[in-house]
Amino acid sequence: VIEGYKSLTDAVARGASVDAVYVDPAAATDVELGAVRDAASIGAAVFEVHPGVLTRACDTVTPQPVAATVRKLDVTIAELARCRPSLVVVLAGVRDPGNAGSIIRTAAAAGSAAVVLCEGSVDVYNPKTVRAAAGGIFSLPVVVGAVEDEIAGQLRNLGLQVFATASKAGRAHTDTDLSGPVAVILGNEARGLADTVSRTADGVLTIPVAEGTDSLGVAAAAAIICFESSRQRRLSRVAGAA
Amino acid sequence: VIEGYKSLTDAVARGASVDAVYVDPAAATDVELGAVRDAASIGAAVFEVHPGVLTRACDTVTPQPVAATVRKLDVTIAELARCRPSLVVVLAGVRDPGNAGSIIRTAAAAGSAAVVLCEGSVDVYNPKTVRAAAGGIFSLPVVVGAVEDEIAGQLRNLGLQVFATASKAGRAHTDTDLSGPVAVILGNEARGLADTVSRTADGVLTIPVAEGTDSLGVAAAAAIICFESSRQRRLSRVAGAA
Repeated sequence: VIEGYKSLTDAVARGASVDAVYVDPAAATDVELGAVRDAASIGAAVFEVHPGVLTRACDTVTPQPVAATVRKLDVTIAELARCRPSLVVVLAGVRDPGNAGSIIRTAAAAGSAAVVLCEGSVDVYNPKTVRAAAGGIFSLPVVVGAVEDEIAGQLRNLGLQVFATASKAGRAHTDTDLSGPVAVILGNEARGLADTVSRTADGVLTIPVAEGTDSLGVAAAAAIICFESSRQRRLSRVAGAA
Repeated sequence: VIEGYKSLTDAVARGASVDAVYVDPAAATDVELGAVRDAASIGAAVFEVHPGVLTRACDTVTPQPVAATVRKLDVTIAELARCRPSLVVVLAGVRDPGNAGSIIRTAAAAGSAAVVLCEGSVDVYNPKTVRAAAGGIFSLPVVVGAVEDEIAGQLRNLGLQVFATASKAGRAHTDTDLSGPVAVILGNEARGLADTVSRTADGVLTIPVAEGTDSLGVAAAAAIICFESSRQRRLSRVAGAA
């Protein structure tokens, strides 16, 4: 379920398969009705609902007069093999839906091939995740329900080098070659990655921080590592072309 | 005002001047009472309050049994001159307290000299900002109430090169020398930076994103630019030492 015309417009623009749209015509603005018409034009069934229905159905404090159901977006790890993944971001224990959504948005912007959510991480269909992803969720495949202790092996079988992350004692992300096919595993907001997961990786990355300061938030860490990989990829393309 | 023992512990650990601590002894856990004792040991006055007082005074949905008042943390731009600023992050129109706090946390971790909040940006003393900053707010000076259209000139007078940011058409942050004394101005979550502000800068930075994807969230953009500057600084120190 997606809520609000912005998420609906993002879904339509990115070719997601919108099954049904629910709209309260009395409360919807012209912009919101426009988004509903766009969804209808690509085949979504439109249902007008009485005021109050969306309020009860939706998660938001300020209910939106538009909601929609979208065909399941997640893929399996086997399906991932087909897209020859370059950069894959794995969430193992990320619990805050805002963080998960923000990481999906950032990963998409960095050109990641996919995001993997392990069991025990937040639900990708949580409306707060969808909102924070700001359309990113429709831009790249998402694998759900992966098993934390098995995901490194599965991604290695796809030809990826797999890195765990830690706030200390790993190798600096900027001193590590992230320009090839790599996966990066991010852990829980408070506890980081479980040792049992880190041990399955090929290496551990650490973002060097200023002395006397705390470690970074997981969404910031994801942004920094994804875009360091993006920087290295652009550099190696330039070197390859030269 | 800071809420919760975590923020209090952060404030004490970073040498912030804690004036007074308010605690509900009936509701506080041993860990929370420990944080109160630590604050008392550095001179904070401790007041026991009746249950319900903190609930009414505090902002959080789940009220915390510990709150404290901390001496104002903000500094003036003139005071900033004394710390020979290298990297300064300026928020011009950032309205979400979670984003502002996250940016302060990230900027501190990247070794920034200061964060500047312009008028019209979120209040640095908003409890949500303090929480999201996770102690970062006590690690670096924060300038508040700067005027958007004047801040670039003021920072230039301190010897900084000032960059605006835009989601398109600027120079790639990775192709720009960010290893010297620089300031980076970030804009509103939805609208970005006002033209009147961008025009006052020495240049405009853009983070290159993958085709067909949206621009980045402002907190992710701040993380990416701060840590690209951090990477370049480390490189130039190595080059300087060689």
